[in-house]
Amino acid sequence: MNVSRRTRIQKTYEALFALEDVREIFRRSLPTGLDGGEEREFSEALARVRGIIDGIEDGGGELPSGRVCDGIEVRSREEDYININPIQAAGRLTPEARKAIISYGDGYSTCDHCRKPFRLDKIGRPPVEAFHRELAEFLSMDVARVVPGARRGFQAVTQSLLEKGDFVIVSSLAHYTEFLAVEVAGGVVREVPLDEDNKVTAEAVAEKIEKVKAETGSLPRLMMIDHFDYQFGNEHEVRGIGKVAKDYGIPFLYNGAYTVGVMPVDGKEIGADFVVGSGHKSMAAVAPSGVLATTEEWAERVFRTTEMTGDVTNRRFGIKEVENMGCTLMGATLISMIASFPRVKARTAAWDEEVAKSNRFLRELSRIDGTRVLSELPRRHTLSKVDTTDSFDTVAKTHKRRGYFLSDELKERGIIGEFAGATRVWKLNTYGLTSDQVDYAAGSFLEIAEGYGLKIS
Amino acid sequence: MNVSRRTRIQKTYEALFALEDVREIFRRSLPTGLDGGEEREFSEALARVRGIIDGIEDGGGELPSGRVCDGIEVRSREEDYININPIQAAGRLTPEARKAIISYGDGYSTCDHCRKPFRLDKIGRPPVEAFHRELAEFLSMDVARVVPGARRGFQAVTQSLLEKGDFVIVSSLAHYTEFLAVEVAGGVVREVPLDEDNKVTAEAVAEKIEKVKAETGSLPRLMMIDHFDYQFGNEHEVRGIGKVAKDYGIPFLYNGAYTVGVMPVDGKEIGADFVVGSGHKSMAAVAPSGVLATTEEWAERVFRTTEMTGDVTNRRFGIKEVENMGCTLMGATLISMIASFPRVKARTAAWDEEVAKSNRFLRELSRIDGTRVLSELPRRHTLSKVDTTDSFDTVAKTHKRRGYFLSDELKERGIIGEFAGATRVWKLNTYGLTSDQVDYAAGSFLEIAEGYGLKIS
Repeated sequence: MNVSRRTRIQKTYEALFALEDVREIFRRSLPTGLDGGEEREFSEALARVRGIIDGIEDGGGELPSGRVCDGIEVRSREEDYININPIQAAGRLTPEARKAIISYGDGYSTCDHCRKPFRLDKIGRPPVEAFHRELAEFLSMDVARVVPGARRGFQAVTQSLLEKGDFVIVSSLAHYTEFLAVEVAGGVVREVPLDEDNKVTAEAVAEKIEKVKAETGSLPRLMMIDHFDYQFGNEHEVRGIGKVAKDYGIPFLYNGAYTVGVMPVDGKEIGADFVVGSGHKSMAAVAPSGVLATTEEWAERVFRTTEMTGDVTNRRFGIKEVENMGCTLMGATLISMIASFPRVKARTAAWDEEVAKSNRFLRELSRIDGTRVLSELPRRHTLSKVDTTDSFDTVAKTHKRRGYFLSDELKERGIIGEFAGATRVWKLNTYGLTSDQVDYAAGSFLEIAEGYGLKIS
Repeated sequence: MNVSRRTRIQKTYEALFALEDVREIFRRSLPTGLDGGEEREFSEALARVRGIIDGIEDGGGELPSGRVCDGIEVRSREEDYININPIQAAGRLTPEARKAIISYGDGYSTCDHCRKPFRLDKIGRPPVEAFHRELAEFLSMDVARVVPGARRGFQAVTQSLLEKGDFVIVSSLAHYTEFLAVEVAGGVVREVPLDEDNKVTAEAVAEKIEKVKAETGSLPRLMMIDHFDYQFGNEHEVRGIGKVAKDYGIPFLYNGAYTVGVMPVDGKEIGADFVVGSGHKSMAAVAPSGVLATTEEWAERVFRTTEMTGDVTNRRFGIKEVENMGCTLMGATLISMIASFPRVKARTAAWDEEVAKSNRFLRELSRIDGTRVLSELPRRHTLSKVDTTDSFDTVAKTHKRRGYFLSDELKERGIIGEFAGATRVWKLNTYGLTSDQVDYAAGSFLEIAEGYGLKIS
């Protein structure tokens, strides 16, 4: 990376931080205005900002400390590099979300205008209530709630539906949080085997249901299936699975951790009883955040309100939802989701372009002899698994830096996010990269391969 | 509030937002550097920042839009006003936390260097692992985990300890999230009555335990008691209660939502088996965040790791903790807690000064004839409940703006956070205000009272 770019980026951070110092002066002062000492402090702080800004454009001057504060380094990966990390791509904040959290970082910042009945999803200002309605619409479901991560959405469903020992159908590529959600509710997972293309078919789901029925004498209580899995980013047959669910009368949780927020999701059409999405994975929001949407029918159960009464005080908190533990995302997590939402809606409509870039990237990567794409082809997602055992790993075998040679070479070219040191099987995600960034990244891999004498076809 | 102050504050936000636009240019560009068009865009964006900065100091020029983005207004309450909101005071971010979330806002931002065994509390960079150790030490407990709000800490404990129908001792001033935590785990609350000073004594707890024993034939399975409650901010006899817990052998969850992060908390000395704190309420952190700390003995149970095995794949995710659903706060929530922590530790040591300010404020407020402090006196906390039925409410009765007259008058003087429209019983919190801000706020109440002919003694 060229030095002046790095300096510019670090100085941009420095200027942002210096402006936070300006802001702090207001926080410590009286509303009547700054006193003499504060006014001087204010002028000095502003002069500092100006000095930094002046240094940004020419990229000259001293490189800033690179620290946020004691012990925490500035995280400038998204500015310094092209990041192909498999799970970070679609959780990157939009500029709107970044601005929103500057303004709404403080603890209970979204609660200024919370009025009766005192529940997060009823707040009108900022537009939390409207956002909840739009969110349900966006997913073609009846009701939606925000939750602290997709996992907490799974948990709300499993804890509402399962009795101890109940069986739950999951994919053989189910994310570990699905396992945990079943376990925390006292249930037991039963995995659907994959077909030869590492995909879950409706037929395999039906077979597994029959097996559970034969084994236990009753049907599984719930099915949780990922539309795209976290390993291969393969598309699984969710529409067919939705039909199987209907046929057997088993509630179906659609895991959209890798779809909600990046591609169109129509929960009703899919036949989902529950749609779960991840804010920090796919909706450009601060972690932990996510969404749980459902139908009118199930909302009553999963979003049931408290019935507990205090035996001494007779207190009841009737509007609070048990599985959500009352309010869920009361600050920057929620506001980042809301601020990103218009852009998130727009980008889901442009999903085909993202998939096209993903395919273009992998086509190029595959030109390196011995490189294999382990995910289904053509790609239907931007998250992919590749095997470079017969290409980059042959270099790693004799390189003094072992597998890290690839990370070194990539980093030198401004690319990060591959699993450092891994040269056999690893994952990447091209989501949200510009066309130029995709071409540049692909070109960098080819250049590195060539430099080490690997054959390019 | 004077207009130029407002303009300055809004322009500070505008400059922060404009710098985010600068930052975005880097995110969209190649690591090799900006091309011609981007370089022009960059110059223009910087010129915009400079222009805003130039306008800040003189406070002149046009007032910015006051919008973060479409539909979301700038939240500048903490700069514009003195905020006496009962629950927001200690969740206000420190400057370090604000800087940290600028840098770590993106979804999985804390996970760049996550390596085996792939669990949040094991991450070395940023220093998440070290923070977890310090957090346990800070509370004098053996083990600590971050959780998405104190409520999720309660839930982890109740779900680990309770069987369906088990009884849990709570205070008659228990927060609703404690009710929910018991309900979600299938338990039943039993409230300890308050004494004449609205306090929970050790004796009353012991009596209630005996009552439950007589009623059900067995001891309650858990006790959850707030050190300071959310209604009066009264101190309850937690040390004595800790002893009662030990005597009966009932696990004791110390609810430190209003203590952890503002005053010293020594869990071992209190006799707590579990210490729960709130990040967004008392640790200057982004919501939802909190902490659950416990002893070695209980850690094994509450932080038990998954035992679920996939029947087809034989997959196990052995290191993931069931009740935490794996990783908890993977981004700005956690980093804001970590960044605030040094200042949070320092401020807990200065708790006496905060209490002194609280008492000073209420002494002044009480000079308004008819005003009563409903919380215990002298105050031992900064959260207090007051009754102005015989003072401000007598004005509201005939004022055309009703109770809102007080909000109007306060706002005009730069004070917010009282419950708008309430002139009878309401709560306030002076935490974190400077000495001058406390005096100014108290003086404003007196001035308003005088203006309406209320007697000052």
